[in-house]
Amino acid sequence: MDAARTELPSASLAGRVASGDERALARAATIVERGGAGARELMRELFPNTGRAVVYGITGAPGAGKSTLVNAMARLLRGRGKRVGIIAVDPSSPFSGGAILGDRIRMQSHHGDEGVFIRSMATRGWMGGLARATAEMALLMDASGREAVLIETVGVGQDEVEIARLADVTIVVMAPGMGDDVQAMKAGVMEIADVFAINKADLEGAEKLEREIGASLSLAMREDGWLPPVVKTVASQGQGVEEVLEAAARYGERRQGRERAERVWAERLRAMLGERVLEGFPAEEFRRAAAEVAARSTDPYTVVEGWMKEMGRGRA
Amino acid sequence: MDAARTELPSASLAGRVASGDERALARAATIVERGGAGARELMRELFPNTGRAVVYGITGAPGAGKSTLVNAMARLLRGRGKRVGIIAVDPSSPFSGGAILGDRIRMQSHHGDEGVFIRSMATRGWMGGLARATAEMALLMDASGREAVLIETVGVGQDEVEIARLADVTIVVMAPGMGDDVQAMKAGVMEIADVFAINKADLEGAEKLEREIGASLSLAMREDGWLPPVVKTVASQGQGVEEVLEAAARYGERRQGRERAERVWAERLRAMLGERVLEGFPAEEFRRAAAEVAARSTDPYTVVEGWMKEMGRGRA
Repeated sequence: MDAARTELPSASLAGRVASGDERALARAATIVERGGAGARELMRELFPNTGRAVVYGITGAPGAGKSTLVNAMARLLRGRGKRVGIIAVDPSSPFSGGAILGDRIRMQSHHGDEGVFIRSMATRGWMGGLARATAEMALLMDASGREAVLIETVGVGQDEVEIARLADVTIVVMAPGMGDDVQAMKAGVMEIADVFAINKADLEGAEKLEREIGASLSLAMREDGWLPPVVKTVASQGQGVEEVLEAAARYGERRQGRERAERVWAERLRAMLGERVLEGFPAEEFRRAAAEVAARSTDPYTVVEGWMKEMGRGRA
Repeated sequence: MDAARTELPSASLAGRVASGDERALARAATIVERGGAGARELMRELFPNTGRAVVYGITGAPGAGKSTLVNAMARLLRGRGKRVGIIAVDPSSPFSGGAILGDRIRMQSHHGDEGVFIRSMATRGWMGGLARATAEMALLMDASGREAVLIETVGVGQDEVEIARLADVTIVVMAPGMGDDVQAMKAGVMEIADVFAINKADLEGAEKLEREIGASLSLAMREDGWLPPVVKTVASQGQGVEEVLEAAARYGERRQGRERAERVWAERLRAMLGERVLEGFPAEEFRRAAAEVAARSTDPYTVVEGWMKEMGRGRA
């Protein structure tokens, strides 16, 4: 794939991002977050430089120690000379746009290290906007030469599932003693986990949790035949973190990369097209139609068909 | 709004749904789940009959007892002669399409009661498909004369946020003793909760949890000035359930219903338009483009712009 890579003018923003410039990357991230034509043009220029990074998804229940593990992974990768991007996804605060995780991580150990670029993302709109925005951010970090992109998500829900789909490998973090009904959450992550990390493995209950995970794994064979390894970690002391990366690498080697990439891109293209279409409609138009629908003076299906006809006449 | 309601031919599926026919509702639910033109036509017919149901969103951490509370609420509402719809949203199983919650609920107490219609929903695609499909299902139950629709979601993520937006009132269920770092999850739900239920309130730690919630609430004043009530429940014994419904009703009275309905419809119209556009594109087209993008022989931004131009020439 290296042959396809183009030389970008070094003075342009895209050129500076591609050369690894940290400040250019920060500016580009802001543009990408904002979205719209500017973001598209920038990413179009940068796209040939993407496809090199390994994207890790790290998810699991609150309190399992995801941030700590992400930090420990970043430290280890830095030690190997890799440049790292971290995306802390925080879907929790749609109204204030807050970013708990981002703040948490920023306070930690990489402050001042240009080799670790950290960005936190909060919810963006309806319609899976968060997963889409996260995918673009990961692509941008990839274009800037980060060899590893770590995406941390909190909780388990559709956003986790979508983010798992875009990651090359998904690591599910659990910890012993998190209540007796972790069952429901475990069921939720069972199918997206390529690697399990039992963090805080020095606490009581780690063996029990390991047995439970093992039992669940033995029940459901994955379609691709992969048996997710279970690694015990004490991330706060760096224990087991190397093993997590090794397990992830083994999964990465084994996977048919191209086939998965094509599946992911088919979904992303759908999402991008949907979003692009909506850009052609001013918010005012949605508000006006919404008022009529809420008053039951029309119905939403008729409204949407009307818009479809208009678009066919070249409106968008 | 009653004046706008139209008489539907009683022999049609829509007519039978509107008359409250349970079997027609089940058939309609399958059509709505399938989506596409058939679902749109059915919902277009039924739309004038909607707008009467109170939609409750019930969310919270796994193990808090959401299903038990939902069941207890349904029982109480049934006792008041209300017809009830329950939607169990299970975003956990994108691959198998499994529905843990649905199964869990089905096994419980309403089996055989036509007054309670239960449907479980699993993840649908990328792009917030689950929230959109859930909204349609709630609308269908509303059209069939269910006065209360209870939407239960597991975990906390973007899906919860989106579902909270479509519910008239969102009830967040917590329970004492669910691990020491419920903080992160609590932060996540703090802003979507209109009512808090501390379930399993007979367990140790209920007072502590109540104080913690109170402290969090005192920190962040909501824009609308509403102070979410905190209700203690033992849902398994029906304790406090009436108080939850009362708190929800107080919130409902206070809210400016029309304004919120308009905001919700503006978002839903966006989502529906996005989905409708994508229907015009065969999956094959996305796959072909995805292969080219994955090979880096083109970029996704150029591909999407090409589609936009085609649509303007009347393709969709």
